[in-house]
Amino acid sequence: MFILVNLKAYDCNPVAVAAAAADVAEETGARIAVAPQAARISAVAATGVETWAQHVSPVEHGSHTGSTHAAAVERTGAVGTLLNHSENRQKLADIDASLNGAESEGLETVVCANNPDQIAAATALDPDAVAVEPPELIGGDESVATADPDIVTDAVEAAGSVDEGVDVFCGAGIATGEDVAAARDLGADGVLLASGVALADDPEAVLRDLVSPL
Amino acid sequence: MFILVNLKAYDCNPVAVAAAAADVAEETGARIAVAPQAARISAVAATGVETWAQHVSPVEHGSHTGSTHAAAVERTGAVGTLLNHSENRQKLADIDASLNGAESEGLETVVCANNPDQIAAATALDPDAVAVEPPELIGGDESVATADPDIVTDAVEAAGSVDEGVDVFCGAGIATGEDVAAARDLGADGVLLASGVALADDPEAVLRDLVSPL
Amino acid sequence: MFILVNLKAYDCNPVAVAAAAADVAEETGARIAVAPQAARISAVAATGVETWAQHVSPVEHGSHTGSTHAAAVERTGAVGTLLNHSENRQKLADIDASLNGAESEGLETVVCANNPDQIAAATALDPDAVAVEPPELIGGDESVATADPDIVTDAVEAAGSVDEGVDVFCGAGIATGEDVAAARDLGADGVLLASGVALADDPEAVLRDLVSPL
Amino acid sequence: MFILVNLKAYDCNPVAVAAAAADVAEETGARIAVAPQAARISAVAATGVETWAQHVSPVEHGSHTGSTHAAAVERTGAVGTLLNHSENRQKLADIDASLNGAESEGLETVVCANNPDQIAAATALDPDAVAVEPPELIGGDESVATADPDIVTDAVEAAGSVDEGVDVFCGAGIATGEDVAAARDLGADGVLLASGVALADDPEAVLRDLVSPL
Repeated sequence: MFILVNLKAYDCNPVAVAAAAADVAEETGARIAVAPQAARISAVAATGVETWAQHVSPVEHGSHTGSTHAAAVERTGAVGTLLNHSENRQKLADIDASLNGAESEGLETVVCANNPDQIAAATALDPDAVAVEPPELIGGDESVATADPDIVTDAVEAAGSVDEGVDVFCGAGIATGEDVAAARDLGADGVLLASGVALADDPEAVLRDLVSPL
Repeated sequence: MFILVNLKAYDCNPVAVAAAAADVAEETGARIAVAPQAARISAVAATGVETWAQHVSPVEHGSHTGSTHAAAVERTGAVGTLLNHSENRQKLADIDASLNGAESEGLETVVCANNPDQIAAATALDPDAVAVEPPELIGGDESVATADPDIVTDAVEAAGSVDEGVDVFCGAGIATGEDVAAARDLGADGVLLASGVALADDPEAVLRDLVSPL
Repeated sequence: MFILVNLKAYDCNPVAVAAAAADVAEETGARIAVAPQAARISAVAATGVETWAQHVSPVEHGSHTGSTHAAAVERTGAVGTLLNHSENRQKLADIDASLNGAESEGLETVVCANNPDQIAAATALDPDAVAVEPPELIGGDESVATADPDIVTDAVEAAGSVDEGVDVFCGAGIATGEDVAAARDLGADGVLLASGVALADDPEAVLRDLVSPL
Repeated sequence: MFILVNLKAYDCNPVAVAAAAADVAEETGARIAVAPQAARISAVAATGVETWAQHVSPVEHGSHTGSTHAAAVERTGAVGTLLNHSENRQKLADIDASLNGAESEGLETVVCANNPDQIAAATALDPDAVAVEPPELIGGDESVATADPDIVTDAVEAAGSVDEGVDVFCGAGIATGEDVAAARDLGADGVLLASGVALADDPEAVLRDLVSPL
């Protein structure tokens, strides 16, 4: 199971969260990555944690002011990127172009989507993984794996019907090791977390709990 | 073969083009539809031609100022809609929502896309048809079916790998019956046209030529 | 005072609302306009009511699939258009281009904005009027003129500081003649309404009440 | 005169350009800033050069995946930000929100716009400066100050008619000290540059020439 912690634009200390994640990953052997704001990638990567971007723009090198170019995040230490997060929905053509940009820089890719139909569509674009996050559960108190287990199994089936080789993650409301185990048992290959870790009083304790069933 | 004439925001007489299309369709038995600006749907539909919308918004009834609601275009005479045209690219989640809105009003749907990967993704959202239009050929002098025949056969294959039941159209540069026949021979179930008919001196003559091989 | 009734994408009978507005306007001499979905403009205009578009696209004639071209709405009977409604926020450059498109077709223009600073900015683009609608009050039970009177007077002042010749409207929560009178007393030249009329059991009765203080 | 070098998503070495700019600024006393990709802000700021962001998102702290939060760029060393660049046009309401976000973090702000009307609108939002860049001249061989001097003087007048306290910059095609002097003589308080410096064989030589008339 891959644990991907999205720091969004939270008012948190990204380096402290990253250091905690690096420690827990090293001690437990679990795969944990942290996705900070683009401006913080170099500081987060310096902790040794696996570092991801939250987004890369659908552009090649050139005149693209305000973009987040795949090369810039890769050069500063990112090894993967989220795309099409529900807080940053992209045009279909732009997801395709962002994937091409990310892949040309060797970044691993996870395309998010709302529901199994969109998961199938995202899978057809051939990312490394897709992630289903029901928008109504994001930031909530109940885990997607218990609140809506069918959406996870349906997403796994939808992705598999298009391409068996694309991993499936799930996210929304995941906060404990029990939630991670439930997601795994539903067929997920990873989970997306955000506030549950980023805004925790003790991110390291949360992370230890999250990976405990693995 | 389905002939879909997109009037875009051209400076043309939509009713005259529609009347010509209605005449040619009736006389030849060919299926020809015309997609005008939303404001012109009722006038175009009054000619008796099969009438389509150029787009419907990803919204249900409610507070959506400036939207193009599926019910509004259906009530005024449209029986289908284009979605995600290269001049009106939509977010993946919005294509899904626009499809749901269109289908709930009984509209036939065609989702456009740039390339075979995006065609596969669009097919996964389960529209009635998908349409491949290479952006670099749109509005040009050479037909997609001769300039880039592989993109048509690749699109047919990509769609078929996801769902055999979804039709595949192609567009860009199609101007003559020969182009329509070439598209058909590559496996397309229909063609999208625009300026070649809408801005022709004699749209009826162009349409007669277009359907001549059918 | 100008009474502009925005039908959004409501599940209402636009022709019935328009007919009621036409009757009340004729009997009372009040200026009342109705802004339906683009597809319904011709049917609404046929009632004789002053008809507006909810939006026009920032484009000239040409290849703009899915746009709402100013000429198309003007040809079907619209005499004005809203722009930049809070449900359809536009880029600054696109408000400017939409204004140019609307004006070249002789459409009257109202640019909406959230707050006095944005009202001043909108005024600088030289529309016929600007309209302040606090997003948090739209669709609510309390009128902007009583819930936040300062925003109306501040908007009037902000617009006037840039160009005295641009009218100022207000909207959000307006439902009664008392609300209209309050808006007028704060310096507004018109009001925007939506659900209060469009979804009323008896739109004509609501409209008669709205114009009663005028 | 303020010289702001926008590195866009160019395939250049941002640290080398920044180091050159830092050297020239120190030696000549000219004010030169460099705006890299967000991911490169910390590396660029480490050279000692005045560092700007190319954009900040219209968001506060919270759930905004893929955003460029003002705090993140400020914490990594940026002291200012461009907004609404022609390659990154923003909604009017979002320019306002981005300005609020930038100002709350103490960032200096420059809002770009296409023409004098939009410059007046941008000025009404009360940034520190506005910048006029005619889109058709961006990336071209001729300086805005010689190709279209009226747009600069009109922008200065438009901004001044709204608020005398907002500086006016210009950009597009500026490549030499002569161009900078011409911009200054037209009333500009600064210039925006991009490829002329970022993609130069010898950025330091270009910068020395640019500041030579100051």
